[in-house]
Amino acid sequence: MLTNELKEGIKILGIACSSFNRITDKTTPVFGVIFRGAELLEGVLKTTVTVDGEDATEKIIEMIEKSAHKKQLKLILTRGVTIAGFNYIDMQKLYERTSLPVISIVDRQPNMDDIKLALENLPQKEKRYEIILKSGPLREVKISAKEEPVYVQSIGLEQQIVNNLLKKITRVGRIPEPIRVARLIATAKSTD
Amino acid sequence: MLTNELKEGIKILGIACSSFNRITDKTTPVFGVIFRGAELLEGVLKTTVTVDGEDATEKIIEMIEKSAHKKQLKLILTRGVTIAGFNYIDMQKLYERTSLPVISIVDRQPNMDDIKLALENLPQKEKRYEIILKSGPLREVKISAKEEPVYVQSIGLEQQIVNNLLKKITRVGRIPEPIRVARLIATAKSTD
Repeated sequence: MLTNELKEGIKILGIACSSFNRITDKTTPVFGVIFRGAELLEGVLKTTVTVDGEDATEKIIEMIEKSAHKKQLKLILTRGVTIAGFNYIDMQKLYERTSLPVISIVDRQPNMDDIKLALENLPQKEKRYEIILKSGPLREVKISAKEEPVYVQSIGLEQQIVNNLLKKITRVGRIPEPIRVARLIATAKSTD
Repeated sequence: MLTNELKEGIKILGIACSSFNRITDKTTPVFGVIFRGAELLEGVLKTTVTVDGEDATEKIIEMIEKSAHKKQLKLILTRGVTIAGFNYIDMQKLYERTSLPVISIVDRQPNMDDIKLALENLPQKEKRYEIILKSGPLREVKISAKEEPVYVQSIGLEQQIVNNLLKKITRVGRIPEPIRVARLIATAKSTD
């Protein structure tokens, strides 16, 4: 159904976090970009999450709840299930609380051994690892014949619908427009 | 010439500043958004300027100079010649230093008496007023038959080219896409 609706431009939220310095930054901004389809930017949301913390899911839910676009939103896109270092997005919780399908995309196959090792130094390491695993298996999806695949996890949508959707909302390279633009905004560096 | 080039998507920089609190904020972020035509967001630049200060022109020049997109840029769009309160953009200087045409657009006819009054409390009030006046007369331009006009000042382009250009790069309402999007980014409020 979503793929049909997309023709008329469903509203999609793309999420990305800013770069940070693990030594000096306790928190980092997270941006949410609202796109109509892959064409028109309609809003920019913002919150702040703790670097390596555990507040990202709640902060993102709050950001959505407070948005004037909330009722028109149809889909959430994230760049992976970790954010702001090893803070994490609990896709299941995000789906249940917002009633919106969630798709996570990364451009490299994550190494679960590396993730496990990094979590060793953080509080609640087992809970974190479990939530990351719970997002489900990574599927390889080819956005275009010319590009390397992306790695996708999703909840609330059938795989075939996800695959078609990702192709339709990708305009540059292999990263869907709402998260490509969210990342451009989140990583803008002041020349000041 | 620009209007022909636009068909293939010239790169345009749209500039907007964030909201600020005159009592608590000494500075405020300014965002520059690089668009290919009115369609594709290609980059986000950022600097910081002093509220009611006099550093905006230099800071914007520096932001452009340091951008990887600098050589492809063809045009600068601003929302008026005042920014961050009564800091100002010296359009003549911006044009000379960057060699790029500059167009300023506001959606209401500015009241010069109000501006003069507001400048009374600021240092260098005469110089500021002179620079604001120097941007040239405001021209009323109708972007679409359905919309109220916008008020335009420009340097480095013929009026007819400016008028055609503005119509081509406006997608929503009467504000050209690069500054509409710059404003959305600059005014995103954290829900944190």
